[in-house]
Amino acid sequence: MRGKRLCIVGGVAGGASCAARARRLDEKAEIIIFERGPFVSFANCGLPYYVGDVIRREEHLLVATPEMFRQRFNIEVRLHSEVVGIDRDGRRILVRDHQTGRHYEETYDALVLSPGSSPVRPPIEGLDLPGVFFVRTIPDSRAIRRMIEERNARTAVVVGGGYIGIEMTENLVRRGLQVTVVEMQRQLMPLCDPEMVWPLQEVLVEKGVEVRLGAEVERIEEAGAQEVTVRLRSGEGIRTPLVIVAVGVRPEVQLARDAGLALGQLGGIRVNDRMQTSDPSIWAVGDAVEVFHVITGRQTLLPLAGPANRQGRIAADVICGRDVRFRGVQGTAVVGLFDQVLAMTGPSEKTLKALGLWDEPYGCEKVYLHPGHHASYYPGAETIAMKLIFSRKDGKILGFQAVSKKGAVRRTDVIAMAVQKGGTVFDLEEAELCYAPQFGSAKDPVNLAGMIAANVLRGDVDVVHAEDMERPPEHVLVLDVREPFEFRRGHIPGALHIPLGSLRQRMEELPKDKEIWAYCYVGQRSYVAVRALRQYGYRAKNLSGGYRSYEIWRKAVGKAP
Amino acid sequence: MRGKRLCIVGGVAGGASCAARARRLDEKAEIIIFERGPFVSFANCGLPYYVGDVIRREEHLLVATPEMFRQRFNIEVRLHSEVVGIDRDGRRILVRDHQTGRHYEETYDALVLSPGSSPVRPPIEGLDLPGVFFVRTIPDSRAIRRMIEERNARTAVVVGGGYIGIEMTENLVRRGLQVTVVEMQRQLMPLCDPEMVWPLQEVLVEKGVEVRLGAEVERIEEAGAQEVTVRLRSGEGIRTPLVIVAVGVRPEVQLARDAGLALGQLGGIRVNDRMQTSDPSIWAVGDAVEVFHVITGRQTLLPLAGPANRQGRIAADVICGRDVRFRGVQGTAVVGLFDQVLAMTGPSEKTLKALGLWDEPYGCEKVYLHPGHHASYYPGAETIAMKLIFSRKDGKILGFQAVSKKGAVRRTDVIAMAVQKGGTVFDLEEAELCYAPQFGSAKDPVNLAGMIAANVLRGDVDVVHAEDMERPPEHVLVLDVREPFEFRRGHIPGALHIPLGSLRQRMEELPKDKEIWAYCYVGQRSYVAVRALRQYGYRAKNLSGGYRSYEIWRKAVGKAP
Repeated sequence: MRGKRLCIVGGVAGGASCAARARRLDEKAEIIIFERGPFVSFANCGLPYYVGDVIRREEHLLVATPEMFRQRFNIEVRLHSEVVGIDRDGRRILVRDHQTGRHYEETYDALVLSPGSSPVRPPIEGLDLPGVFFVRTIPDSRAIRRMIEERNARTAVVVGGGYIGIEMTENLVRRGLQVTVVEMQRQLMPLCDPEMVWPLQEVLVEKGVEVRLGAEVERIEEAGAQEVTVRLRSGEGIRTPLVIVAVGVRPEVQLARDAGLALGQLGGIRVNDRMQTSDPSIWAVGDAVEVFHVITGRQTLLPLAGPANRQGRIAADVICGRDVRFRGVQGTAVVGLFDQVLAMTGPSEKTLKALGLWDEPYGCEKVYLHPGHHASYYPGAETIAMKLIFSRKDGKILGFQAVSKKGAVRRTDVIAMAVQKGGTVFDLEEAELCYAPQFGSAKDPVNLAGMIAANVLRGDVDVVHAEDMERPPEHVLVLDVREPFEFRRGHIPGALHIPLGSLRQRMEELPKDKEIWAYCYVGQRSYVAVRALRQYGYRAKNLSGGYRSYEIWRKAVGKAP
Repeated sequence: MRGKRLCIVGGVAGGASCAARARRLDEKAEIIIFERGPFVSFANCGLPYYVGDVIRREEHLLVATPEMFRQRFNIEVRLHSEVVGIDRDGRRILVRDHQTGRHYEETYDALVLSPGSSPVRPPIEGLDLPGVFFVRTIPDSRAIRRMIEERNARTAVVVGGGYIGIEMTENLVRRGLQVTVVEMQRQLMPLCDPEMVWPLQEVLVEKGVEVRLGAEVERIEEAGAQEVTVRLRSGEGIRTPLVIVAVGVRPEVQLARDAGLALGQLGGIRVNDRMQTSDPSIWAVGDAVEVFHVITGRQTLLPLAGPANRQGRIAADVICGRDVRFRGVQGTAVVGLFDQVLAMTGPSEKTLKALGLWDEPYGCEKVYLHPGHHASYYPGAETIAMKLIFSRKDGKILGFQAVSKKGAVRRTDVIAMAVQKGGTVFDLEEAELCYAPQFGSAKDPVNLAGMIAANVLRGDVDVVHAEDMERPPEHVLVLDVREPFEFRRGHIPGALHIPLGSLRQRMEELPKDKEIWAYCYVGQRSYVAVRALRQYGYRAKNLSGGYRSYEIWRKAVGKAP
């Protein structure tokens, strides 16, 4: 008896995972991967690092080869083979062999679409000029490497300050190029909150990168044989031999759309929680599909390799008759920029507000903190800037962002697991995590985040934020409880200064008819101050994250001098 | 109206946390810390690193000073003040001032005992000889440092291969000493599983440390003015100017016992989940108390700073009228040894078996894996040796150990959070964690651990373990599916060799009347082989962790050549 025939469109991440899993579950199935490009299962997340010569050989990017699929899994991989049409009624696909130009048909019992996403092409002229590149495939990266050498490039312009833009910038700097980043929005990493992204921008500036925020490219023009000019709306032109365009990706849905499969509102392929499209014989996984976001409750596009692999596995399970569901995504992600790392799980404040979820239904609150990545008494502790977003209603963790030279990924992963399990800030408070002086603190940053948030929820302290400090209301007195030397170095305009150590003695200097907004450097001493003040009958609130958060916010967002 | 008077015995970790928290909750309380030693709130976990000059100045170990407690918290700290008696009926304590020799009484409304633990003194002669040290306090470390210099010590003997023994060994090696570690048991880190500890032993040997396992010290003898001889039961004597005795700690319960407070079966102070002793006006926290272990369901002693701090906070909450409970401990811990790190959460196999919990009620199973700490295609990936223990009944995660140069702590912390939330291996399978090539893999090691365990639970594969390979039953055929060059380098005696790539073609060589135990290097290829074999009607099982686990087990435990 012949086994079922499983055809898979796209051999990277989701498609490759699906194929291998299907084979492990069904030895008799006929499994064919159709991959339009010259490689199967390559490490597309490694492409920027191949450009930067961190990954030195192209072979290293090849996670698997057609030969390996054949030998290990008895899976046939057809490279240079683009599926250009689906005959759903006949359960047939039309394949174009790019090497021969020939078209042919194949039948399927189950079809899995894993076409991925393609770089967004902004509506500007000049994208096809030599020297202008998108970053999607190994040949793309190879061409960029070659161009750097051929043109002996000393400069580059990176259009777009998201993940790929930042990773490409790092790697071009590593190759010795002077890079200009042009980002349309007023911040890098537009999905994150600006104050959490700020440290990345500082790293870029340190490395000599020019960062142009709020700058739009109007067109790209030829400028001699070896260069182009990136013309901004401001009129300014930046002449360079190399332009990388990385302004986002969009799901590849042409094939699905042509076949009449349902698409979602965001333009991705619509699937159910078994990764099944509107045609029950066709599954879709990876960057091309819209998925359920477990925190926002909305459909989302999340073009990341982890979920793609998971979806591929689930599609295989379902095709092989198992009752398995995709639980949705929570948006865990990380980007490194030299020694600085920004990691996150769950939506940002910006996203929650854009979706109209911040106030209702979630009743969001946020806290900032700046703990060391390990015990301060052990040399080498690096500060982690952390932002925890949670519900005032039940303490549920909604989002977390952390940026640091060390330790940000670990705390994000722990909180990602807490989010997955529906955890609250109270869970973080009582987490039992690894501690030895070189690895953490007796109160780990995760515990501290939980404690600070739980203090708010229990009503022990109310918090205000850096943005509230821009123009405090009339009835507010701003109180700085740091030491004199700290106050002298800089403070919030108009703040009254009483160090914590003399607060109890000098409390009568404070007016009872005003609300007191206290701050110290990171928010810990001022929390103690607020607790004391409240017990003596003052209305007092704490500036979350302290002067440090205030400073970052001012630089990242504010307009203050 | 006078606030309540809170007396705290012991000013490190639990005691200090309790005091500060109490102040934040109750501005009017009178809070006094009685600390027998010369310092309050010092970093005892840092002591080995102070000996090793990693932490260069004694001041760095002082997390807080009496002055800071007074100024910030209005808390009185009395140093050199030992509480030597409790009059429970009169709610009074008797204090001995070690500086004046004077005794005096203080009353309390609430009393918190945070006396910590003291090093176990093994029943041998010579512990009081000059040059023989325990490691508990800053003065201890200072004395060790001084002794190294005074005696110009070139060698040392560390008695005990647990946390402190290992950390002290690292730091003495760092100071240039030739160290011999003498451990009574047949492994270092006796609470962990021997195969997971093995890499630490390899590091010690690499660093020129002599490791004597199963070796017992009979006595320590004088050997001239500047040295002692550590005499082993074997008769051998090791002459050295410096001996560190670190054979464990025991709870300090003298004061509690004298006061008639209930002790537990393990010798710690008995407390309820509000950290209350058998006297409702007396609380106890930290190393001195017995606590509930959330996995074993038994009482345990866990002398670690994290739980101590949490307990101190909870005692303060309860004393201040809040309804807060200690959730118990799960035994998360970490030890570093140069660049090698061993981290764990939940009990080891050894502990579960010793407590009689392995088979029933938990129905434990375990899996081993050896993933890279980040994507293999990005340079610098380090292997993490991982062991996941879970229940066959419901997939609940019971214990996890990981050892690696990088990435072990992060995965342990993630799994610690999963354990805290009652998570299963299925949760690990679908965890959404940070991935970029330098930080992880699209399938993170945590995902892989979950997948491998879930495969077992779903009946997709059965596993056997290295110890089963020592002497496989008659009806078993051992099958090596690696490449020829791997097989030639070493294999399990008697194994049949068919590389995975030709398994499907050569399957008829395999007997159907035997059970096939397949292995590859880490267990992944042989998993694919087992899946294929089973579908062709063979009874097949997979060696969990593969040849790599087999090799480690043989070195760590086995008696094979």
